[in-house]
Amino acid sequence: MKKVAIVMGSASDSPLAKEAVKTLSEFGVSYAARVLSAHRSPVQAAEFAASASAEGYGVVIAIAGKAAHLAGVLASHTRLPVIGVPASSKDLGGLDALLSTAQMPKGVPVAAVAIDGAANAALLAVRILALGDDGLNERLESHARALAEKTSEADAALQKELQKEL
Amino acid sequence: MKKVAIVMGSASDSPLAKEAVKTLSEFGVSYAARVLSAHRSPVQAAEFAASASAEGYGVVIAIAGKAAHLAGVLASHTRLPVIGVPASSKDLGGLDALLSTAQMPKGVPVAAVAIDGAANAALLAVRILALGDDGLNERLESHARALAEKTSEADAALQKELQKEL
Amino acid sequence: MKKVAIVMGSASDSPLAKEAVKTLSEFGVSYAARVLSAHRSPVQAAEFAASASAEGYGVVIAIAGKAAHLAGVLASHTRLPVIGVPASSKDLGGLDALLSTAQMPKGVPVAAVAIDGAANAALLAVRILALGDDGLNERLESHARALAEKTSEADAALQKELQKEL
Amino acid sequence: MKKVAIVMGSASDSPLAKEAVKTLSEFGVSYAARVLSAHRSPVQAAEFAASASAEGYGVVIAIAGKAAHLAGVLASHTRLPVIGVPASSKDLGGLDALLSTAQMPKGVPVAAVAIDGAANAALLAVRILALGDDGLNERLESHARALAEKTSEADAALQKELQKEL
Amino acid sequence: MKKVAIVMGSASDSPLAKEAVKTLSEFGVSYAARVLSAHRSPVQAAEFAASASAEGYGVVIAIAGKAAHLAGVLASHTRLPVIGVPASSKDLGGLDALLSTAQMPKGVPVAAVAIDGAANAALLAVRILALGDDGLNERLESHARALAEKTSEADAALQKELQKEL
Amino acid sequence: MKKVAIVMGSASDSPLAKEAVKTLSEFGVSYAARVLSAHRSPVQAAEFAASASAEGYGVVIAIAGKAAHLAGVLASHTRLPVIGVPASSKDLGGLDALLSTAQMPKGVPVAAVAIDGAANAALLAVRILALGDDGLNERLESHARALAEKTSEADAALQKELQKEL
Amino acid sequence: MKKVAIVMGSASDSPLAKEAVKTLSEFGVSYAARVLSAHRSPVQAAEFAASASAEGYGVVIAIAGKAAHLAGVLASHTRLPVIGVPASSKDLGGLDALLSTAQMPKGVPVAAVAIDGAANAALLAVRILALGDDGLNERLESHARALAEKTSEADAALQKELQKEL
Amino acid sequence: MKKVAIVMGSASDSPLAKEAVKTLSEFGVSYAARVLSAHRSPVQAAEFAASASAEGYGVVIAIAGKAAHLAGVLASHTRLPVIGVPASSKDLGGLDALLSTAQMPKGVPVAAVAIDGAANAALLAVRILALGDDGLNERLESHARALAEKTSEADAALQKELQKEL
Repeated sequence: MKKVAIVMGSASDSPLAKEAVKTLSEFGVSYAARVLSAHRSPVQAAEFAASASAEGYGVVIAIAGKAAHLAGVLASHTRLPVIGVPASSKDLGGLDALLSTAQMPKGVPVAAVAIDGAANAALLAVRILALGDDGLNERLESHARALAEKTSEADAALQKELQKEL
Repeated sequence: MKKVAIVMGSASDSPLAKEAVKTLSEFGVSYAARVLSAHRSPVQAAEFAASASAEGYGVVIAIAGKAAHLAGVLASHTRLPVIGVPASSKDLGGLDALLSTAQMPKGVPVAAVAIDGAANAALLAVRILALGDDGLNERLESHARALAEKTSEADAALQKELQKEL
Repeated sequence: MKKVAIVMGSASDSPLAKEAVKTLSEFGVSYAARVLSAHRSPVQAAEFAASASAEGYGVVIAIAGKAAHLAGVLASHTRLPVIGVPASSKDLGGLDALLSTAQMPKGVPVAAVAIDGAANAALLAVRILALGDDGLNERLESHARALAEKTSEADAALQKELQKEL
Repeated sequence: MKKVAIVMGSASDSPLAKEAVKTLSEFGVSYAARVLSAHRSPVQAAEFAASASAEGYGVVIAIAGKAAHLAGVLASHTRLPVIGVPASSKDLGGLDALLSTAQMPKGVPVAAVAIDGAANAALLAVRILALGDDGLNERLESHARALAEKTSEADAALQKELQKEL
Repeated sequence: MKKVAIVMGSASDSPLAKEAVKTLSEFGVSYAARVLSAHRSPVQAAEFAASASAEGYGVVIAIAGKAAHLAGVLASHTRLPVIGVPASSKDLGGLDALLSTAQMPKGVPVAAVAIDGAANAALLAVRILALGDDGLNERLESHARALAEKTSEADAALQKELQKEL
Repeated sequence: MKKVAIVMGSASDSPLAKEAVKTLSEFGVSYAARVLSAHRSPVQAAEFAASASAEGYGVVIAIAGKAAHLAGVLASHTRLPVIGVPASSKDLGGLDALLSTAQMPKGVPVAAVAIDGAANAALLAVRILALGDDGLNERLESHARALAEKTSEADAALQKELQKEL
Repeated sequence: MKKVAIVMGSASDSPLAKEAVKTLSEFGVSYAARVLSAHRSPVQAAEFAASASAEGYGVVIAIAGKAAHLAGVLASHTRLPVIGVPASSKDLGGLDALLSTAQMPKGVPVAAVAIDGAANAALLAVRILALGDDGLNERLESHARALAEKTSEADAALQKELQKEL
Repeated sequence: MKKVAIVMGSASDSPLAKEAVKTLSEFGVSYAARVLSAHRSPVQAAEFAASASAEGYGVVIAIAGKAAHLAGVLASHTRLPVIGVPASSKDLGGLDALLSTAQMPKGVPVAAVAIDGAANAALLAVRILALGDDGLNERLESHARALAEKTSEADAALQKELQKEL
């Protein structure tokens, strides 16, 4: 199975990277986590993207904040699907990162997930890799059932709790 | 090769759907275009998503405007990767659709592209399908080269034009 | 008298649900509080909405954050009035939830209240149920008078306090 | 059956009022359309709201743009459910009207629909009145089925059209 | 000299009211501070505004948050100049209050100051009252000189401090 | 009676200036209209503001778009009340001008009116000048009555028109 | 004297490029205009930036819309000052481009000008080049005087015109 | 070598000024830090800008929040390049300051950097001064290499850390 690259623009994005790591680990998907900046190490970032497919990666997750160019820059050097995670920041709450990630011009697509949505980025990567992997697909179905069950349990618990309050 | 489903929330989204159709056709990717509304035909939309994988689809593109729930609703009924295209509208320019598409809660991912970015949604679908298809991957490389060449031609033309102006 | 359904998209929305519970209790209106997710338990959410009228509900309150699809999804499966409470979040402050809740397309209406406005959602539900219930209507009039009186008391207290400061 | 009041803040909002009129007429719901301004005729607006229930109205729809205070002002003088329609304008696209309508403080609820969503405001009014009216409820179910059918027809037509294009 | 009315929509706005109080006191301008809500005590608010001129007020300052209708509602019942102070809140930071205060329709003006700008509202009131009061005008000139001097002192202090750092 | 200065940042703002001119003329208030730019003619703008009071002006209206510094700059050179009219523009619809005008720091107040709200700026200037002018105050009362009557006529006309449509 | 590079991300940005060309020509500053895309021709864009200083350029102007990465990408490959011009677009009016251009992370600066502010970008480039060029500095002073004079003429003309209207 | 002027609108902006000071010191660039307000000390601010070039400054950095007029006002009184740093604030997160700084009208350019981007403002000043200073240019190249190396070290460290977590 192909690996997932989790690229963050700065070491300060590592809490988000770890959320992606956690989800990929749960699904048994191999990954590498890298710090590569579109602005501070642009040559390394371009080289990584250009060779990512040959290195066995199937999906690239790019995590960056503010004027978040990382996902777009990586997507311009590879033909792999690139998922962008806009990181929130104190000033504009991540709206800048969301627009910088999502509003890509025609020709070079990026798949934007929610602000700080690193876990969902990993799930999206799993959905993509599962297209050619029946085992992974089954784990996705289990995961979906588990989500529904967990919601049902919360439903039951909350009804009890609110009942007590009356 | 798996097919791409292009689902629009309303017939008024068909110009965007046609942009996706055009791109997929250029890459020789099979597709079906459907009008299924998360709000006006929710049962049909859910059924379509639930059976999309079994019907041979590999990627779902969902096009919707305003409170754009379509991509999220489809993504909750299938395990296929779902790409959301926020459609612009006169009042808020599509910001509502972008936020409604991208800001999905943890557990159910959607891949948001730019406002009105239907062509990029199709390119993202091609990138996903190309993971298991060498021929498609080659066409993506050609497409990238063509984009660079077209940009070079524009570069040459513009330099000439501006030269004349001085 | 018909009951009110308070549906939240996640157990983390329970503080808001409790505000609605508190207001409905004050008015003596029966309710049920449920955790049903448009994305994580879409089938249960749809079934609940589809049978809500038959189960004796008269109004549905839906509380959800970010890409808040819950109110819209419930409104597409029932003909009862659905009130949406956009829940705030750290990044965009709830603007995403407000737009996802309010900007519904033509054909399926949702009644959006303020961000985190669960108490007002309950009051709106009471106003709706009071149309066919004179007792409830009287309690609404008392509530309005109490609000005005409480404001008058605050007015008197503040004048005193500021007087002391000079 | 109770009537619906359609109040607009300015005669320039009459195109939106007519959308509400059209929908209410389709459902056979009686209505009156009024021009009453929270700012230019505040006394008349307050008087209208204060006597609306006694005059036989069951729901008030308030249409206003920019700093749209109309719905809130009417809601403070009546205990009937008040639905606010934020009207779009050229400068901010209606974001100001949406926030002015939806972000009501605790104690006085307004039901905000989408920017320019006058047809949905009327449908919401019908849903509210249908709680005590089985005939109206049946018409709502027919309307929902018609929406689904119309979507299915658009679905069929579009598939044909796109088929022809290939 | 005419008095200034400081009206707040809720007792929770009293910290802002006190800033206005402090500034007016510094200038020796008489004032009254009131809690009057456009929504919770609309009749009292309207009556206060309608009689404000006769009661000896020359300027009305209205402080309110969220869907801040207070300034507009008061301005519709008096011909005195009304200054609106949009109060910030956690969710949208006061953008809703700013738009609800500033975007008044043609015919009924409100003078909006900055979000939480209660001290500036008081200064604006003083500028207005100073038009017919030479003593007040002199105090305004002193205040402006004091501001410039205080800035010069900060300038001197900071240069010293930064000097030390090198 | 003191005069009103209508200052615009650019000749392209003259349509807004003419709206202010029209309103002031209706009230018989003297005015001068000037083009003075905070950026392109800063010395002239500062000189004008510094001598405005001595020249017989009582209120300054400043009309400017985009990074609208004009009102703030004039307010820093005079102690007269300064009213800022944020001019709309194609890109951000005037949000930039509104924030640049309204969000003044503590110490130097500006009275912001709505985007493109030049007529309201003139009305606010009239309200200010009317504090010391009984005749002007009476004209304001007439104007308010006329607005209410005009709204009543629109009310009557619209009811007739909608009646005909049924 | 060093040259200015005007780089646009797409040939559709050429109207903005021509505004920059026009201003630079007026000041007698040499320039080259290029079409180089951060996404469609990333290798060429990086190479151009990396060699720009050696090729005799002193300032780089980058014009791009939507998720405008061009200025940031060029700034990461050169040590020359890079000026970013956010291009407006229909959907979000250029807010996305402004944030993508201005919100650069620490370490790699970009000088953002206004949305569609290509003429100002050229003026900023001239200001930079004039630091080492007395002749250019004199032309800047003339230009500033001309702006002030043109404003004075508009001032005179407008006063006449408005005078006529009374 | 020419000096850099760091002008802040208020002493409360000194933490940002110190970030600029720190960066300029690292590059051995002379600077002066001043508190000069566009609104509270407009005459001093204008005088400083008008004489800045003659006093040996080559670049002016202006730091201000909210309706941030400082950079624009300084740029109108000097022909030196002016860099504006929008300071964040609690309410709107600095969006107001960014728009007030960046959206300058045609004729008077300001170079806006990111919200709170004082370090980048200093780096931009260094890039500008380095155009005529080979030593400074070499230090910029070293700085860029150091950034890339620091990113590489973070890259190595993070891979190790995440490895341990699995």
